[in-house]
Amino acid sequence: MSITTLKELFIHDLSDVYSAERQITKALPKMARAATDPKLVDAFKTHLEETQGQIERLDQVVESSDEIRLKRMKCHAMEGLVEEAQELIDSVEKGEVLDAGLIGAAQKVEHYEIATYGTLAALAKKLGYSQAAKLLEETLQEEKDTDKKLTVIAGSQSATKTAKS
Amino acid sequence: MSITTLKELFIHDLSDVYSAERQITKALPKMARAATDPKLVDAFKTHLEETQGQIERLDQVVESSDEIRLKRMKCHAMEGLVEEAQELIDSVEKGEVLDAGLIGAAQKVEHYEIATYGTLAALAKKLGYSQAAKLLEETLQEEKDTDKKLTVIAGSQSATKTAKS
Repeated sequence: MSITTLKELFIHDLSDVYSAERQITKALPKMARAATDPKLVDAFKTHLEETQGQIERLDQVVESSDEIRLKRMKCHAMEGLVEEAQELIDSVEKGEVLDAGLIGAAQKVEHYEIATYGTLAALAKKLGYSQAAKLLEETLQEEKDTDKKLTVIAGSQSATKTAKS
Repeated sequence: MSITTLKELFIHDLSDVYSAERQITKALPKMARAATDPKLVDAFKTHLEETQGQIERLDQVVESSDEIRLKRMKCHAMEGLVEEAQELIDSVEKGEVLDAGLIGAAQKVEHYEIATYGTLAALAKKLGYSQAAKLLEETLQEEKDTDKKLTVIAGSQSATKTAKS
């Protein structure tokens, strides 16, 4: 990796999030199968569809300018985040406690993406890639909405149930 | 790792963020040395002091209840995030482009912590650890403020300069 311009930094970050999104599409079906609360199962399934749309949007970002070509790379941070979710699935019995853990793991993933798409949209604007900036901001808003939805689901877990745990 | 109750999940997440914070205290001095913009250098130095305060706050969380005992563990997600920052430092020449990359890397770290402390504060409340919840919310607010400060610094990079890159 050799980066000397903001454009190269933008392409690096874009390639990184492309890898992250692909890892997420593999993790979400496992998280949906591991969840118990129907609202949480539904949220993971919906977010899988959104993530597939977000990958298509990344393809559109690439198509929006001849200057943008993705590099093949693996997002190590997302590898760590997915590993954390998998560890929870492997070690916690299915039910309320695992659901709470999965919500936390998913919110870490969402916040990784919120930070990444925020940076990418800002860089795209600075570089004059207005179409790319618009697409990246759409995804940023989706990630923020998913994070809020997960907070609501976490809050809806019954206090009576949790008091027993 | 064996987790069967919300309390064990809380202790797991608390131990994880303790490891994350300790990794951050090692990474921030390197990020401050690699940065050029004095506002960014200052933000990293200030956040190092805050992080040390946040570790002390975690110690207070542990002291707030006999039931809370940390486990020795390594936060793999933070390992990945710190690795990303180090890769940038190793491959980008010091200056405006590295600064932009470091801001992005730092915001990923902040958002990891925002997600983690949000979950921890919610779990502490559910478990009736009111003193712990208060301490965790204080740190959550600090992380959100640092993220906003970094966004302002990113926006203040001169448009003339960036247009050249």
